[in-house]
Amino acid sequence: MFRSHTCGELRTEHIGHEVTLAGWVHRRRDHGELIFLDLRDRYGITQVVFDSITAMAHKVAEESRSEYVLQIRGRVRARPAEAVNPHLGTGTIEVEALEAQVLNPSRTTPIYIAQEGGEDEMIRLKYRYLDLRRERMQRNLILRHRVIKFMRDFLDEEGFLEIETPILIKSTPEGARDYLVPSRVHPGKFYALPQSPQQLKQLLMVAGYDRYFQVARCFRDEDLRADRQPEFTQLDMEMSFVDQEDVIQLIERLFIELCRAVVPHKHVPTPFPRLTYAEALARYGSDKPDLRYGLELINLSDLLMATPFQVFQQALANGGEVKGLCIPGCGSYSRKQIDELTEFAKIGGARGLAWAIVPADGGEVRSSFGKNLGEGEMSAIVERMAAQPGDLLLIVADQPTVVAAALDRLRREFAQRLKLADPNTLNFSWVLDFPLVEWNEDEARWDAVHHPFTAPQDADMHLMATDPGKVRAKAYDLVLNGYEAGGGSIRIHRRDVQQQLFDLLGITPELAQAQFGHMLEAFEYGAPPHGGIAPGIDRIVMILADESTIREVMAFPKTQQAVDLMTAAPSPVDERQLKELHINLR
Amino acid sequence: MFRSHTCGELRTEHIGHEVTLAGWVHRRRDHGELIFLDLRDRYGITQVVFDSITAMAHKVAEESRSEYVLQIRGRVRARPAEAVNPHLGTGTIEVEALEAQVLNPSRTTPIYIAQEGGEDEMIRLKYRYLDLRRERMQRNLILRHRVIKFMRDFLDEEGFLEIETPILIKSTPEGARDYLVPSRVHPGKFYALPQSPQQLKQLLMVAGYDRYFQVARCFRDEDLRADRQPEFTQLDMEMSFVDQEDVIQLIERLFIELCRAVVPHKHVPTPFPRLTYAEALARYGSDKPDLRYGLELINLSDLLMATPFQVFQQALANGGEVKGLCIPGCGSYSRKQIDELTEFAKIGGARGLAWAIVPADGGEVRSSFGKNLGEGEMSAIVERMAAQPGDLLLIVADQPTVVAAALDRLRREFAQRLKLADPNTLNFSWVLDFPLVEWNEDEARWDAVHHPFTAPQDADMHLMATDPGKVRAKAYDLVLNGYEAGGGSIRIHRRDVQQQLFDLLGITPELAQAQFGHMLEAFEYGAPPHGGIAPGIDRIVMILADESTIREVMAFPKTQQAVDLMTAAPSPVDERQLKELHINLR
Repeated sequence: MFRSHTCGELRTEHIGHEVTLAGWVHRRRDHGELIFLDLRDRYGITQVVFDSITAMAHKVAEESRSEYVLQIRGRVRARPAEAVNPHLGTGTIEVEALEAQVLNPSRTTPIYIAQEGGEDEMIRLKYRYLDLRRERMQRNLILRHRVIKFMRDFLDEEGFLEIETPILIKSTPEGARDYLVPSRVHPGKFYALPQSPQQLKQLLMVAGYDRYFQVARCFRDEDLRADRQPEFTQLDMEMSFVDQEDVIQLIERLFIELCRAVVPHKHVPTPFPRLTYAEALARYGSDKPDLRYGLELINLSDLLMATPFQVFQQALANGGEVKGLCIPGCGSYSRKQIDELTEFAKIGGARGLAWAIVPADGGEVRSSFGKNLGEGEMSAIVERMAAQPGDLLLIVADQPTVVAAALDRLRREFAQRLKLADPNTLNFSWVLDFPLVEWNEDEARWDAVHHPFTAPQDADMHLMATDPGKVRAKAYDLVLNGYEAGGGSIRIHRRDVQQQLFDLLGITPELAQAQFGHMLEAFEYGAPPHGGIAPGIDRIVMILADESTIREVMAFPKTQQAVDLMTAAPSPVDERQLKELHINLR
Repeated sequence: MFRSHTCGELRTEHIGHEVTLAGWVHRRRDHGELIFLDLRDRYGITQVVFDSITAMAHKVAEESRSEYVLQIRGRVRARPAEAVNPHLGTGTIEVEALEAQVLNPSRTTPIYIAQEGGEDEMIRLKYRYLDLRRERMQRNLILRHRVIKFMRDFLDEEGFLEIETPILIKSTPEGARDYLVPSRVHPGKFYALPQSPQQLKQLLMVAGYDRYFQVARCFRDEDLRADRQPEFTQLDMEMSFVDQEDVIQLIERLFIELCRAVVPHKHVPTPFPRLTYAEALARYGSDKPDLRYGLELINLSDLLMATPFQVFQQALANGGEVKGLCIPGCGSYSRKQIDELTEFAKIGGARGLAWAIVPADGGEVRSSFGKNLGEGEMSAIVERMAAQPGDLLLIVADQPTVVAAALDRLRREFAQRLKLADPNTLNFSWVLDFPLVEWNEDEARWDAVHHPFTAPQDADMHLMATDPGKVRAKAYDLVLNGYEAGGGSIRIHRRDVQQQLFDLLGITPELAQAQFGHMLEAFEYGAPPHGGIAPGIDRIVMILADESTIREVMAFPKTQQAVDLMTAAPSPVDERQLKELHINLR
C-alpha cells in the first residue's frame, strides 16, 4: 500500500494518527535542521516537516527537489496557530515525517508547475504531462469530466440510451472534409471517419430506439482554430415522436440543471431567450449573437430613402441597407483610432465605415459624412440611435450580409473593449426559423443550410416548389455567449418529402440512390417522426471554464506547429508501411 | 405532442383515461367490425381495439399493416377477464381507439420483427434498422448501455476521472496493425488510430491525474472473428500509487457489483479464483481457462519415464510431456468418432491422439497404444486419471505448448458436448505471474509477452540479465468463462528500468529514442508508480447477454461479406478524393 491518505485529506480530526502519503514535491523550504516540503497530488497539498531527529528522512528531504515523487510515513500534528493556512483544506495540520523515500526523482522541469508562466505554448504542449499538473488544467479536466458525467446521468434518467456508432464508416463522395482510412484487409478500399453520426442516429430512430445519445467523437480534415480541432466531441442526441418544442424543452432543462450542478456561481437567464434567424441577423448581425449585452444594430435605411449622400443612396438602391452601432462613451476616439476601426470593418467585408461623434460638451456633431447629408438627416440619425453626448456612431451601408458581418465584428470588438459582457453570466439562447435552403451563387443551385435531412416547416411546404428561399426549416441552434453551442433539427421521416428536397437541391435520383439509398429505403419501413441536436462539448466546457481556446480543456490537443509532438500531429510513415497499405492509385 | 404515454406504460390505474399513443403495428387481428392492433415501441406493447363506431379510426386500422407507424387517441379500459395477458406489463388493459392516423406507412419488411427467423446474417445486416427492432437486440443494446453506465458510475464514485485521449495519434513504425490516416492539411503525413491509449494514459499518470478511465474506442487493422471487430471498445483504466493487488481488488469489486446490478440472476463465484500462468497452462492448457467446469489436464509424464512406447519416450526425451483428459461417459465412442477427435486435435497442432476406453461393463481397457506400453503402465495411467467404467481417455505426447493447445481444444469441445458449463454462472478469474518476455525463435530475440511498459516482478529483477525467460511480470489477466476479459499490468515508472527492458528486447538506444523518447523523457520528470487494466467491453457484454458473437451486442457491426452496407465496410473512393489525399507514393 503506497499511501493511507491522499494529500488533500488530512484534517484536525487526524491529529495524532500515523499516516503514509505519496505525491510530488510542490515547494520546499530548507531551514537547515528543519525542512518543510509541500507534498502535492490531485487532491491537495499537505505540509510535511522534517527535523534532524529522524536522520534518514531528513536526508531524503535534503536531497529532494521540485517534482520529486516521495512516499512519506509520518504523524499528523496541529500547526502552530500562526502557521495555520485558511486557504488550504489541510491548512490546520502538518505531518511530522518519520520515514521517507524517493519513489522517483525529477530533473528540473522546463515549466513551473506551481506558477503559470508566460512560456511558449509549444513548450506547454511538448511537456503536456507537466502542463497538465497545473492546478488550472486539472480544474479544467475535472470540470470536463463533471460536465459529461452530468449529461450522461441526466439523459439516462430521461430514458435515453447511449449507443455506440462506428468510427470507421462508409465513405461517401460528398465528404470533402472526411478523413479517409485505407484498409489493409480490403486493398484499395477506404473507410471514412464520421463528421457526425447523423445518418446512423437517424437509423437508430427507424430501429425504434426512441431516445438515443452518445458522447461522440467526430472528425473534420480541416484547419485548426481556437475553437476547432480536427477531432472534437459532441453530445449527439436524437428522439422519436417529438417536435421542435420537445427537443428545446429537454435541452433547456439539461443545461439549466447542468450549470446549477457544475458552475453554481454562474448566472443563467431562464427561460433561454429565443430569436428567429431573421431577427438575430437584423438586431445583432449574427446568427449566434452574444446576448449578455445590448449594443444592437440600428436600422437607418427608412430615414435615408431620399438622402443625397451617394454612398447611402446607392447601397439602398441596390437592395442594401444602412445600419449602425451607437458606442457609448467613445466619442473621444481619435482619427487614428477610427481609421483602425475602418480597417477592422473592412476585414469583415465592408467597403467603408461612416462615423459620427456627439461631443461630450454638447457641441456640433462631427462626422465623416455629415456634409453630404440632406436637411435634418443627421439629427434623425442621432435621434434614432438614441446617441448621448460622448457617444461614437459607426455606420455601414452595403448589402445586408456585408452590413451584418461588419457590424457584428464591431459589436464584438466593442463588447470586449468596454467589458460589456458579464463574465459570470451564461447566456444560452435559441435561434429559430432558419431558412431551409440558400442560393449558391457560384454553383447556381440551392444548398441545404443545415443538412439535407432537415425538415421544412409545415406552414411553408406550399413554397417548396414556388419560392424555396422562403421556406423555413424546423431547425434550431443553441447559442451560448456568442458561440454556436449546438445545432439541431426535426428530420424528414417520409421518403416523398426527402425526395422532394433532394430534387430541390439538384441531387439526381441516381446520385440520391448512390449516396443516400439506404436512408431513402429505411424511410419506407416505418420511420417515426424524429429530431435531435448535437451540442459541442469542447466549446461548452471552454466557456464554462472561462477559457478562450478549447486547447485548454482537452488533455492532448493538436496544433499545427507542434508537428513532432506525441499526440499533436501526423508523422511520416516508412516505406514498409506504405507498401502494406496497398494503395492502388490506378 | 405526439403521445401522452409510451406503449409500455398503461396499467389498471389508467382505466378511464384518455391517452395518445404512438408506435409500430406489431401484430394485427382483423375480425371485420373489430380490429385488434398490438402497438409497439421500445417500452412495450399495448393492445388497441378498433370497432366500427369510430369509422375514421377503423379505416386506418383496416389499411394498416405490420410496421406501420400510427398515432392513436383512445380511452383505456379493462380487458375482459379471459383476455388478460399476465406476460405483458400492459396485459390487464386495452385502449379503445377514438382517432387514429398513419404517421408513416411501411412496405412489407424483408425480415420478421415479431419473430426471430433463420434468415441470412447478410439480410440482418443490410436491414440492420429492422433487425435492431427485435426484442432480443433491443435487450442486448439496453444491457450494453446499462453495463457501461454502471462502470462509469462506479469509477466516478471511486474518484476516477474520465479523460478523452485522441483518436488521431502519432503513427509509430512498429504499428503493424495500425490504421493509418492520411492528412490533407499536412500532405504526405499520416495519423494512426490507436490500438489502445496505453502511452497516453501513462502520460496522464505522470501528469498526476491519479485515477483515470475512459470507455475508449480502439482499432486494429486485421481480420474479423466472432469475438473481434476492427474497432472495439474497452474500459481503459490506470491508477497511480498502486500495486497489483490494488488493481485486482478494485476490478473485482467493480465486476461483482456490476453483475449484481445488471444480471442479478447470474451466479458469480467470489472471490475470483486466481491461477498463475504456469498453473493455468498445466491444469487447463490455456491462459484463459473456463473454470465453470473441471475436466483438467492430467500429467502422466512421471509415470512413463521408462516406457518402451516410442511415441511417449521420444516426446519425453525431447523435453516434452505426456498429458491427458478423462472424458466421463464417452467410453461408447465409435472408432469413427475417435478418428474425428484425432483430426480435431491435429488442427490444434498435435501429431496424433492416443486414446483408451475403460469399458462400462468392467472389461479390459481398449486402447490405441496399450500393446506398446510396459508392464503396469496402463493401470497406472487409469489410476492417475481416476478413470471410471465408461470413460474415454485422450492423451497427447509432444512439446508442452503443443500438448496444451491440443488438450485445451479438446477440453472446450467436450465441455460443449457434455454441457459441462453452467450457462448461469459467470466465472471471473485472474491469471497471474505471466512471464515478462518470451523467446522469438524466428527473429532470434526476446519479445515482450504483454507490452514493453510492463514491470518485472521485484523478486525476479536479479534474473533480468542472467535468465530473462524466468522473469515474471507484474501482469494480470481477467478471464471470464474462457475468454480473456481484460489484460493489465503494473507499468515501469523509472527510466533506468525501462532502458534495461528495451536493451533486453534488442531495441537500440537510437530506436528507443525515436519510438519511445517522449515516454523515456516523461519518466525523468517525476513519474509515479502506476498500473492499470483494460477490460474489453464488447466481449464482456456478449457473455453477459448469453450471445456467442459480439456482432449481436453492437448496433452497427462490420462483416467482411457485407461490403456495400452503410456502416459495414469500406467503399471505393473516387479519383477526386484520391487526388485530394496527396498521397505521394512517387
